[in-house]
Amino acid sequence: MAKSIARSPLAVPFPALRTVPGVRFAAAAAGIRYRDRTDLVLASFAPGTTVAGVFTRNLCPGAPVDWCRASLAGGVARGLVVNAGNANVFTGQAGRDACAGTAKAAAALLGCAPEAVFLSSTGVIGEVLPFERITAALPAMVPTLSEDGWEAAARGIMTTDTFPKGAVAHARIGGTEVVIQGIAKGSGMIAPDMATMLCFAATNAVLPASVMQALLKRSVDRSFNRTTVDSDTSTSDTVLLFATGQAGNQAPGAADDPALAEFAAALDGLMLDLALQVIRDGEGARKLVRIDVSGGVSDESARRVAMAVANSPLVKTAIAGEDANWGRIVMAVGKSGEPADRDTLSIAVGGTWMARAGTIVPGYDEAPVVAHMRGQEIGIEIDLGLGAGSGHAWTCDLTHGYIDINGSYRS
Amino acid sequence: MAKSIARSPLAVPFPALRTVPGVRFAAAAAGIRYRDRTDLVLASFAPGTTVAGVFTRNLCPGAPVDWCRASLAGGVARGLVVNAGNANVFTGQAGRDACAGTAKAAAALLGCAPEAVFLSSTGVIGEVLPFERITAALPAMVPTLSEDGWEAAARGIMTTDTFPKGAVAHARIGGTEVVIQGIAKGSGMIAPDMATMLCFAATNAVLPASVMQALLKRSVDRSFNRTTVDSDTSTSDTVLLFATGQAGNQAPGAADDPALAEFAAALDGLMLDLALQVIRDGEGARKLVRIDVSGGVSDESARRVAMAVANSPLVKTAIAGEDANWGRIVMAVGKSGEPADRDTLSIAVGGTWMARAGTIVPGYDEAPVVAHMRGQEIGIEIDLGLGAGSGHAWTCDLTHGYIDINGSYRS
Repeated sequence: MAKSIARSPLAVPFPALRTVPGVRFAAAAAGIRYRDRTDLVLASFAPGTTVAGVFTRNLCPGAPVDWCRASLAGGVARGLVVNAGNANVFTGQAGRDACAGTAKAAAALLGCAPEAVFLSSTGVIGEVLPFERITAALPAMVPTLSEDGWEAAARGIMTTDTFPKGAVAHARIGGTEVVIQGIAKGSGMIAPDMATMLCFAATNAVLPASVMQALLKRSVDRSFNRTTVDSDTSTSDTVLLFATGQAGNQAPGAADDPALAEFAAALDGLMLDLALQVIRDGEGARKLVRIDVSGGVSDESARRVAMAVANSPLVKTAIAGEDANWGRIVMAVGKSGEPADRDTLSIAVGGTWMARAGTIVPGYDEAPVVAHMRGQEIGIEIDLGLGAGSGHAWTCDLTHGYIDINGSYRS
Repeated sequence: MAKSIARSPLAVPFPALRTVPGVRFAAAAAGIRYRDRTDLVLASFAPGTTVAGVFTRNLCPGAPVDWCRASLAGGVARGLVVNAGNANVFTGQAGRDACAGTAKAAAALLGCAPEAVFLSSTGVIGEVLPFERITAALPAMVPTLSEDGWEAAARGIMTTDTFPKGAVAHARIGGTEVVIQGIAKGSGMIAPDMATMLCFAATNAVLPASVMQALLKRSVDRSFNRTTVDSDTSTSDTVLLFATGQAGNQAPGAADDPALAEFAAALDGLMLDLALQVIRDGEGARKLVRIDVSGGVSDESARRVAMAVANSPLVKTAIAGEDANWGRIVMAVGKSGEPADRDTLSIAVGGTWMARAGTIVPGYDEAPVVAHMRGQEIGIEIDLGLGAGSGHAWTCDLTHGYIDINGSYRS
């Protein structure tokens, strides 16, 4: 199925990644669902590695999400096992057994406790995960673990993805230079049979788990949680950040430690880079769209309005049709439920204000707007004219490709 | 644009309507936007006619919605003017002037106060309504007002609709037989350039406005407000019910008057009939879908879960693909935000339980499910297994037709 999907026109090249001392990856073809491709990824982390995680808000999460949430309490990580093709979601006791069995096997190979092994599965929902194929493949992967295995891992976790996703950033903590590097997969928040959103990042910084958790949550709120493809939230969404401590920087005491300012900014940039790569691979996506909302009664209200516009099928189909259809934007603002006043509402596309204070701008020149709509990156600005609140969201357009990918049989 | 759309395969024939004493309709081609078709409808109501209305919850409503809300305070109606092709939404002062001018002209012709004239406009958003074309056409329509004008009116209010929509019901109030009859247009809750959802119904019963308002609100909550095509809420949605009082039944004192039980049930049936006709004309619709949710912590919670499933693009594309993809149903239940427990969740399609208590039913026979999915009417049952709350929702599938209709330029 994944093989039949053409590479997204919004795809970006895989970046030249560095290594993160203490982090090694291996990928293998375990034949869980796909043929002739890698579908199993193993990672090992040096002793002393701390971990932070953010997971789906979906109330029917997969067994691996439950496993990670529980393991996160320990705050330490030594291993990660990710499979593609089967999400191990809605599989009852069999799903829990698959998690325990996989973690136990990996722990034995890595010489750690099962609770130090983190798990992610993506793919079809409701089918029992044949985890024996995973435990059978793991032993041969251990000797192949490599600090250069990041791109192989990025490819091994792909499902409906049409290109592998990675990013690298640098920062100084105190006087110490550290690296942050991550990979991601998925098509945004949507949860088709064969996809979900995963992100695994690591740094060589010394970071207490509690500090890293606060930083990661804020970064995810500013990146992945501001993106949407079609408003459907996966049961498996997982973002994990590992810190090996190999850089030997002085341990920060709290997330707001001034010494962490540069690292936090770099982490924000990394997460946003990966989140936008996911949107660029949104199913059927032809255009990347950013919605900026100002004049809201609060930042949160403005963000909700931006997400309402980003989630509107009518706005997204209009963008697919290269139609600067601000009437649909008005509709989406109004349906958001957030404070909005038709008569103070202004809308711009590509920097051209088409409507101001509740009515069309008399004789505005549509030419630059039409030209902007033909591009691959679309900008929409909305001024609610009520207050000082601002927010934004990213999405993609809604095309026939989305129907093609999601309207077909699983088999 | 509308002409290019093929008739919905879910279309139903226009029923044989009766007349409602005291209600007369006329339709004309005013050339507001369309050519070679009627696009303007005028209705007159006998003196003493009461009125009730329910309108869009969109916070950026059209000027006609504001006009109707204000006029509703009077509780009396003598006229109705509806145009297709221009929604008079987001048109600022010009929109308010168009409403006042249209109502004034109709009032002069019908011999009533402008506030007794109700207005609805559907079509493109953000373009000033050329209401002079309406006021110019109205005088010639008055002599053609007819109690048999219902079907002509149903056709005159169509936009992207592929078939006219009407329904008739009967009931006794006390010993008096009364008729309730209505027409509707639209493609559900969605708000494309050229469509929205409107419903106009009338009865010859004697009904105080306040009593009728309570009955209508409950009926709409049980019908139109349980349907969705794509979660986008129109800025013009309007349901109006007129009572001419010609039947001479004894005036009921309150909505819960036992004498109104049969009428209330008939009204519910009429509104549901019309609401489902709208969903049957949902843009690109190929299948009509009903989602029944039981076992919720409350009826409202169950209803919200049903709407979350009905609004899920992934569930709707799966149905379009005739794929009984219950994994996506699990996802939609989980993303609803309502209390749900993966391990007590059961799902059936077409009466076949595929998943029970959080896992797939061992070796369930997919054959009857596959056969059911090939049909035009799809039934999904969800048992949350938490409480006694139940609720339901109706929707249609999401197909290439939706993209075709909404992804094209306005012009």
